[in-house]
Amino acid sequence: MKLASVQIQGQVRAAVVQGAQVATIGAPGEDLGALLRAGTSISEFAALAAQAGEWHALSDAQFLAPVPRPGKAVCVGLNYADHTRESRMEQPAHPTLFMRCASSLAAHESAVRRPPGDDSLDFEGEMVVVIGTGGRHIRREAALSHVFGYAVGNDISVREFQFRSPQWTLGKNVDGTGPWGPWVVTADALPPGGSGLKIETWLNGQVMQSANTSDMIFDVATLVASVSEAMTLEPGDILFSGTPAGVGMGRTPVRYMQPGDVVEVGIERLGLLRNRIVAG
Amino acid sequence: MKLASVQIQGQVRAAVVQGAQVATIGAPGEDLGALLRAGTSISEFAALAAQAGEWHALSDAQFLAPVPRPGKAVCVGLNYADHTRESRMEQPAHPTLFMRCASSLAAHESAVRRPPGDDSLDFEGEMVVVIGTGGRHIRREAALSHVFGYAVGNDISVREFQFRSPQWTLGKNVDGTGPWGPWVVTADALPPGGSGLKIETWLNGQVMQSANTSDMIFDVATLVASVSEAMTLEPGDILFSGTPAGVGMGRTPVRYMQPGDVVEVGIERLGLLRNRIVAG
Repeated sequence: MKLASVQIQGQVRAAVVQGAQVATIGAPGEDLGALLRAGTSISEFAALAAQAGEWHALSDAQFLAPVPRPGKAVCVGLNYADHTRESRMEQPAHPTLFMRCASSLAAHESAVRRPPGDDSLDFEGEMVVVIGTGGRHIRREAALSHVFGYAVGNDISVREFQFRSPQWTLGKNVDGTGPWGPWVVTADALPPGGSGLKIETWLNGQVMQSANTSDMIFDVATLVASVSEAMTLEPGDILFSGTPAGVGMGRTPVRYMQPGDVVEVGIERLGLLRNRIVAG
Repeated sequence: MKLASVQIQGQVRAAVVQGAQVATIGAPGEDLGALLRAGTSISEFAALAAQAGEWHALSDAQFLAPVPRPGKAVCVGLNYADHTRESRMEQPAHPTLFMRCASSLAAHESAVRRPPGDDSLDFEGEMVVVIGTGGRHIRREAALSHVFGYAVGNDISVREFQFRSPQWTLGKNVDGTGPWGPWVVTADALPPGGSGLKIETWLNGQVMQSANTSDMIFDVATLVASVSEAMTLEPGDILFSGTPAGVGMGRTPVRYMQPGDVVEVGIERLGLLRNRIVAG
């Protein structure tokens, strides 16, 4: 099941997507995040989808980020060995975590603004994990039962900001640089932990990153357990699970994104996330 | 003017504090964050306070974090030269930023739980800046007009988590380790940028940190400008502005907090924030 948040007929709605069609579920004004925070389970979403009335063409809907304002968005760095090498970092023994604030998140087909004067805007194709059932001190063995679904994400980074200080926050939180979507694919429709899925990033149609989600150093169950060792995970919280090699910063010569570029991230069975870069 | 969020007579309320008394303002269920996000200005708060009806003893109210769920909480590391030295870090030329998620924030008089098995819980007394007027690309010269007020904070850190990887996130986001309050003092009642205020931290009544907010390397106006270079600041967003020397990690021998310890942070004209450490 593919679930999304959309703007349709002037309203924010949660929605189910089938093929090239979309139907709204829940009440007007309620996005997918509101339904998740209300505790809606995958089987309850399936019942809502079965009752969905009017179907619309996808082109009549504008996608929002699937959870537009998650309680938290935790991101993982250095989670693919080849990306750690290209970043000239040492591989830490624990997940390397940073955060994105809600104002940095964005939707499929949104325009990503490069900051004025910057020439260090870089792509990072990633799988995003959506939490369904909250918890703290979640054991690794139980962790996947807390995952609601998976989506495609692009952890777009402003490298000049990222490396101004030892903490990466500024370069990872520029407005609108964290697109994800178009939708969330529920966990019941995928291999456990979203593993074994091909992940690729294209810039203007040229492959830049190509890997498999099984290449993660810390798998999804480990990430959920590690994060929840410190923080209570809440329904609708999201995890960006890290990017493989091939980012612009790691190439010779470097290849940063320019206004007019189109960046796409595709993950097998999850869909394709497309964004255009514009001048800030 | 001192403004707070409280639980009183079973309801969450925004409130004004005068001496040992508190009066509710706004509608039941609305905390101070809701009023800030609705665009309420300092002079409008003053009018609400002047109309406040019934006054209660402070002991009848339980303080919440002044803005219980800010849109974002951006924290500054290495912002006092003597703390940078005791941390054995080099002083970066730009602010070192990290984030706290809402589940890590807490209130005056809340119990702070040390994680099970941990012995690295450390205090960091700090001044907290509350944003009143949002914006992006805010110039340093205009930055203080975006500040609504100032509060006392304690950026309590789990050092073992903090240094597991190059990014400090995990150690800065343990549930309930970011108490701040009891209230916000509005900017009109303070020196520009909250500068020139004595800041001290006590552990069981013993002074551990003693400095002045004028010792900050990056002052409040610079921090607001720097953060907004990347992110749109929104009303009710908060900034933890960094801690001076004297933290437990920097002492010989180290002095981490233990269950039963009482930690207090006091800032001149802003008030006293007190929390007790309990076993997790």
